[in-house]
Amino acid sequence: MRELSAIKRIEMASRQIPGVVSLAQGTPSLYSDKAIRQAVIQAIEENKVDKYSPGAGIPELRKEISRQLAREGMDYDAEGEILVTAGAIEALSAVFLALLQKGNEVVVLTPTYYANYESIIEMAGGVAVEVQLEEQEGWQLDFEKLKAALTPQTKAVLLCNPNNPTGSILSKEELTKLGQLAKERNLLLVFDDVYHHLVYGKELFCLATEGEYKDNIIRIVSFSKTFALTGWRIGFLHGPRELVAHIVPMHDNLLNCAPVVSQYAALAALQHEKEIVPKVVEEYRKRRELMGGLLQEMKDYLSFVAPEGAYYFFPKIHGVANTMDFAFEVLEKAKVAVVPGEDFGPGGEGHIRLCFGRAPEDIEEGLSRLKAYFEDLK
Amino acid sequence: MRELSAIKRIEMASRQIPGVVSLAQGTPSLYSDKAIRQAVIQAIEENKVDKYSPGAGIPELRKEISRQLAREGMDYDAEGEILVTAGAIEALSAVFLALLQKGNEVVVLTPTYYANYESIIEMAGGVAVEVQLEEQEGWQLDFEKLKAALTPQTKAVLLCNPNNPTGSILSKEELTKLGQLAKERNLLLVFDDVYHHLVYGKELFCLATEGEYKDNIIRIVSFSKTFALTGWRIGFLHGPRELVAHIVPMHDNLLNCAPVVSQYAALAALQHEKEIVPKVVEEYRKRRELMGGLLQEMKDYLSFVAPEGAYYFFPKIHGVANTMDFAFEVLEKAKVAVVPGEDFGPGGEGHIRLCFGRAPEDIEEGLSRLKAYFEDLK
Repeated sequence: MRELSAIKRIEMASRQIPGVVSLAQGTPSLYSDKAIRQAVIQAIEENKVDKYSPGAGIPELRKEISRQLAREGMDYDAEGEILVTAGAIEALSAVFLALLQKGNEVVVLTPTYYANYESIIEMAGGVAVEVQLEEQEGWQLDFEKLKAALTPQTKAVLLCNPNNPTGSILSKEELTKLGQLAKERNLLLVFDDVYHHLVYGKELFCLATEGEYKDNIIRIVSFSKTFALTGWRIGFLHGPRELVAHIVPMHDNLLNCAPVVSQYAALAALQHEKEIVPKVVEEYRKRRELMGGLLQEMKDYLSFVAPEGAYYFFPKIHGVANTMDFAFEVLEKAKVAVVPGEDFGPGGEGHIRLCFGRAPEDIEEGLSRLKAYFEDLK
Repeated sequence: MRELSAIKRIEMASRQIPGVVSLAQGTPSLYSDKAIRQAVIQAIEENKVDKYSPGAGIPELRKEISRQLAREGMDYDAEGEILVTAGAIEALSAVFLALLQKGNEVVVLTPTYYANYESIIEMAGGVAVEVQLEEQEGWQLDFEKLKAALTPQTKAVLLCNPNNPTGSILSKEELTKLGQLAKERNLLLVFDDVYHHLVYGKELFCLATEGEYKDNIIRIVSFSKTFALTGWRIGFLHGPRELVAHIVPMHDNLLNCAPVVSQYAALAALQHEKEIVPKVVEEYRKRRELMGGLLQEMKDYLSFVAPEGAYYFFPKIHGVANTMDFAFEVLEKAKVAVVPGEDFGPGGEGHIRLCFGRAPEDIEEGLSRLKAYFEDLK
């Protein structure tokens, strides 16, 4: 039997303990923007959300996505190159169920959202092959390691950029090299870009803006994080026509169509993106500083590379080789929920993930409890 | 490459032709009840829908489902025996992805919602094995045929009751024999009970009310049809604790959790079930009479068994062995969309499916066009 990820198990355990502060699951503390809710309520009142939509999504939303991608320098047709999904998770499942043959390998750069990626790849009959990022180099990708991991069975490389849990970003140079490699070796690059808006300072390069790699890229985007719509289960994917045509029937198997009410939430989110995103990014920038400062005060017990994107810190805990037991002990003794690094693949051993998408008071209280826990151990 | 079902292809083609009347896809013409919308809008305004719910669904909904099942004579715990899903389709996918091993066989009684069932079973590595229902006997199940189809690889029997597209209902006697067989042969009975409210006259027996078969039953229920919530993608499954524990992680892979806004719609639907369901059933009863009467006038061209449940007629077209070309010709020449019987498995050859969930004026206009088409052919 497949087990739920430690993220989910920690989160479920934490709900049973009164007074726990959770910095575990990547749920933003913010709520959706008023403009989104108003648009949804209007769509409900206008009888627009009760019926199935076309499998690929309501045309208005696909057109808005196409225009938005064009503004970001990407050329994808609303008809046949864009598929609206029930969030990034359903998109990943539909992609791998559609495109993997039994025994195909998917290279996954760890630490990353590994437990779920591996589970989805295995569900689709594939095999996840880990390539560890280099923590000493700010979680860079070692191309020699990557090339050594490729076999005739390698079908795809799955990348989360900005990466969960490290908050690291692959550079334009790294991504271009990846694009070249994908073309040479006929590999598919699957980008899980759910944190693409959440970047602090550094420029984020998106390989799908380079048309020459289009045939090798499926890119997945979610409205969950930036727009605080995790509960709505809404996102999309875009890719070359031929691959999307294979994915649509699998999406039909899994879901028929994305929830229509959520598709209207997504449409409003895109229409108000310019007002919403800067506010959200500014808020998370502050929380990143808050959490970074508090972790700095715990330098005797842990060390970390500051995240460039997403909303996690991923500190290495000194003297703890495996953080699975550690995380459950911290939950029980200090009443703070953190995610053990092992959930993110072997590259995550000895680390814990802390989400700064959570409320500032939870960040302060949670880290104060963690600090007290460390100090009691001395 | 997997192709979309004829239902979806006909529906997509019909959207391209101005003035088409569709009696194809099983989308009810009704809209959701005011009480459901008001409850959803309130939940949105109260900030209840933005965050992930527990994977199995919001506790209030699971408890309401458990109470509702108890009223119907079924004993299922809100914790561990009920899973809220994104409609019946996601439930079926999660069930078969979780429980089938490569090469396992699933017996499917045809004609039924075959194209999608087969596609989902194959996605999960299984093989669909058809057993044809007996049209002459009012679409009854022949147990000798069923037994002859069982092999050591048979894992499950998938049943739609009331059945789509025949509208037939398995009797208590048939279902009890099935339950006994399932126990003897260690088979899982997967009930796709999405039409369970839509029954006209005859009593519907539900095998899950007999506790002795609990270990052998997974039952799937959707809010789509009765409550006109197809676009919301919301349903649930219930089953024995051990099997549900296997299905939850697969549901997590596919979706994380059902859309929370839709979970609140489902909660309101159950709370108002007693007011909503009788109104809806009465409306469909009238439409069934309307469609039945109009089809009676076409007895020279077709014949049918009157449906006892669901909202379809499934007439056999005289002199047409294969209705795939016929359906596309009727779409083009008569501008009425119907579903070719081949989509429902070999048992459906030579038939077409007509949905009386559609509006009365569409039923009248659609069947008037169909009649004119037949008369022109003479």
